[in-house]
Amino acid sequence: MKNNKKKIIFKKRTSVKQIEEGSEFCPKFNDLKLLPCITVEEKSNEILMFSYVNKEALKKTLETKKAHYFSRSRNLLWFKGETSGMYHYVKKILIDDDQDCLIFEVALSKPKKGGNPASCHVGYKSCFYRKVVKSKDGEVVLRFIEKKKSFDPEKVYKGITNPTRI
Amino acid sequence: MKNNKKKIIFKKRTSVKQIEEGSEFCPKFNDLKLLPCITVEEKSNEILMFSYVNKEALKKTLETKKAHYFSRSRNLLWFKGETSGMYHYVKKILIDDDQDCLIFEVALSKPKKGGNPASCHVGYKSCFYRKVVKSKDGEVVLRFIEKKKSFDPEKVYKGITNPTRI
Repeated sequence: MKNNKKKIIFKKRTSVKQIEEGSEFCPKFNDLKLLPCITVEEKSNEILMFSYVNKEALKKTLETKKAHYFSRSRNLLWFKGETSGMYHYVKKILIDDDQDCLIFEVALSKPKKGGNPASCHVGYKSCFYRKVVKSKDGEVVLRFIEKKKSFDPEKVYKGITNPTRI
Repeated sequence: MKNNKKKIIFKKRTSVKQIEEGSEFCPKFNDLKLLPCITVEEKSNEILMFSYVNKEALKKTLETKKAHYFSRSRNLLWFKGETSGMYHYVKKILIDDDQDCLIFEVALSKPKKGGNPASCHVGYKSCFYRKVVKSKDGEVVLRFIEKKKSFDPEKVYKGITNPTRI
């Protein structure tokens, strides 16, 4: 067990070969010190949300196996599920060719105030609950693909400011 | 057919309700005028890559049903497949709750210089060909999950600068 507590080190990026073809973990954080992260439900392969991690969030995720993100709207470390009970239990992490994007494959849990396992603060399972289509008159519009909410956001996030910004 | 040529309009963002619960298409481009985009293979649900679109790329994608992105490394509109033959035929587009991220669900094609249908410039089907794991001695390292390349990148991208930046 001692080994699992080894300090997590992000290696220095030295060559395209190291980054693309190697086994060294050398993620590239952007100018805002963030790394994009796609969250997928492991069992269904469904994409649940898109967000960012900073170094601290990524380290905490690797250490605890529960997803931590960086909330840009609140400008702080965001332990997913802390408020709602809807944790992201991380089963697998993938990284892309140039190591500037992550995938967290997760299992979901139910909101503590009732409802089905879900992820999105609006009440749907996934944040991607609408598709972009052309309407009959040729206008580009959105159509709901999740027909029913998994939980009542008014109950689960009572008193919490909505993170969506206009 | 006339209707399909209607000008694509991105609606003005006016309220959280409109953005989250509505059917108006009002994507939010970031400070660099880009919108993150996750590309998924429609038939397998496998995530292929993560990139960005600008307004022009998104409009061209909606018009042609072939994915166009914005290449940050080359700072230009990127018609995926133009060089390699590995087009992304867009079957479905999804958008997230606050309309600041897209998913393109696509079908792949083979590189014109030979190989199997794929997407990643390194030669793998997906850009996410490695997982992040702890090694026996507790170090965080990468392990390949795609064992074999789908095509030879030296052949397919001969003379083209590698987009990966150190």
